[in-house]
Formats: sequence, C-alpha cells, structure tokens
Amino acid sequence: MDQQQLFVKMAVDGWNQQLKFTNDTLDKILDEELLNEISPGKNRGIYLLGHLVAVHDLMLPLLRFEEALYPELVQPFIKAPDKTVADLPPVSQLREQWNIVNDKLAAHINNLSPADWFTRHNSVSEEDFAKEPHRNRLNVLMGRTSHLANHRGQIVLLVPKSK
Amino acid sequence: MDQQQLFVKMAVDGWNQQLKFTNDTLDKILDEELLNEISPGKNRGIYLLGHLVAVHDLMLPLLRFEEALYPELVQPFIKAPDKTVADLPPVSQLREQWNIVNDKLAAHINNLSPADWFTRHNSVSEEDFAKEPHRNRLNVLMGRTSHLANHRGQIVLLVPKSK
Repeated sequence: MDQQQLFVKMAVDGWNQQLKFTNDTLDKILDEELLNEISPGKNRGIYLLGHLVAVHDLMLPLLRFEEALYPELVQPFIKAPDKTVADLPPVSQLREQWNIVNDKLAAHINNLSPADWFTRHNSVSEEDFAKEPHRNRLNVLMGRTSHLANHRGQIVLLVPKSK
Repeated sequence: MDQQQLFVKMAVDGWNQQLKFTNDTLDKILDEELLNEISPGKNRGIYLLGHLVAVHDLMLPLLRFEEALYPELVQPFIKAPDKTVADLPPVSQLREQWNIVNDKLAAHINNLSPADWFTRHNSVSEEDFAKEPHRNRLNVLMGRTSHLANHRGQIVLLVPKSK
C-alpha cells in the first residue's frame, strides 16, 4: 500500500466509522422519538436527520460524483432553521433517503482511485486549486466526517435510557 | 508541498478547526452555566470539558510526545460517568488545563515531521504496526478530531440564546 492509498484508507475508514456510529444511534430511536427536541428549545431529531440527508446529498455534486438526489431538502433542512417550516417529510421517508444517499456515496467512494481523491472538489476553481491543493475531494470527506460526528453527538441524546 | 506534507496539513487543519470551534463555543458559556446538563438527565458541561481535557492529555503519551500532565483526571472524567464523583475540580481550573494541554499538543504537532506522523502510535506494537500501517500517529489525530466534534455538538447546547 503506497502513502496515498494509506491516507485515503485512513480518511474513508474515519467516515465509515462515524456513519456506523450514527446508524447504530438512529436504530435505537423510534420515529416518534425523533420528533422530540434534543434539549428544550433546541433542534428536533427529525430536523437533524433531514439536515444530515441534505448535507450528504450535496456531497454528490460537491465531490463531482453526480447530481443531488433530493435538492428539495436544502430549503427546509439547511436554509431554514428548525420549527419554521410547516410541512416536513415524515421520518420514515427521511430514514429511507438517508440510506439511499449514503449507499450512493459509498458506491462512488469505493470506486474513486487514490489519485482522484486528491483532485479538486466542485466549489474550487482550477486556478485556485493550483495554489491550494488541500482543497481536494478527500478534504471534503474529512470535513463532513467532523460534521457528522458533531450532529451524532446531538442525536444520541434522544436514545432512551433503556437502550 | 509533497503528498505527505499535504496529508498532514489536511489532518492538522481539521484538528485546529475543531479546536477553534470548541474554544469559540466555550467562550460563550459562563463557568456556572457549564454546571448545567446539556439536556435533562444527560452529562453536564463541566463533565464534558473535563472529559475533553483528560482525553487530549492522554494524546501526549499516545502520540509518543511526553507523559500525561493530568493523569488524575482519568478516573473522574473518563472511567466514571458524570454525577458519580463528588468532588470535581472547579470549571476555572479545567479551562486552564484545557488551554495548557492543547498548547502543549500544538507545540508537538507543529514540530513533528510529516514522515514521523506516519509512524506508530503508542498503543500498537512494532509487530502489529508492520501489518497495519494505518495505526499511525496521524490517524490518532483524525480520530480525536471526530471525538472533539462529537462533544462540541453537545457543549454548544449550553450557549445562551442571546449569544
């Protein structure tokens, strides 16, 4: 395994680990429990789940894999704060979209060659990328791993004590 | 910048970013507000701060930098759950230790050569490391970045609405 392969493995393993932790957490929370706030006056579980679906979905174009599958989730789950949008999709649908988008990402992630991980992501120009080579696709994955960990630490607050 | 320098920069930048986010969050919370639970029945801010100090302190030996500064924090903030230890250090002391331990880590982090980041961390043997080269010091830093993000997402719940 060369250095580049090794580093890609480290970053992809970190991503997969946070996804697994998050899925283990979501499996312990009922749909109706996701309607609760993580703490009084704070975001609800449904909002955080929808937010993660929307952010991961946008990784598809950002990583230059393919178009986003659910652009309609950007408004209610990224642009708008929680409890300001009247009609959110049901939790069951968000769970399904969560699995679909992560499976899509996984297929692309597992197919990308180590060298291609170090090419630019979609929101940096060729010109800027030449000067700032750290703005590559792998760096997006690492940033989104921290983003996921951040919100997983919040969603876990909804797991009932018995589990 | 060669490939190895680039990887190290990506991982160290990610670590520094999460530290900055966490410090910005802690700056908005008063010492007495850190005595509150992040959500009813859950960990208190003081416990999460002490936990982060203790975990970061253990990175000093784990990364083969130097001995831990505050081994006495392991029992109350890692081994014991919150609200089971009667006498915790005051928040003001934990904040001071938090800054000291992160400054110590930063000095070592900034001094370590890119090649040395890809050597083994302290809890893997030379023999196992030969077979599993991803168990290196940089991987510890990446894992602790997610750990920090996870708990930062919880501590942020204590920031008063006005800030």
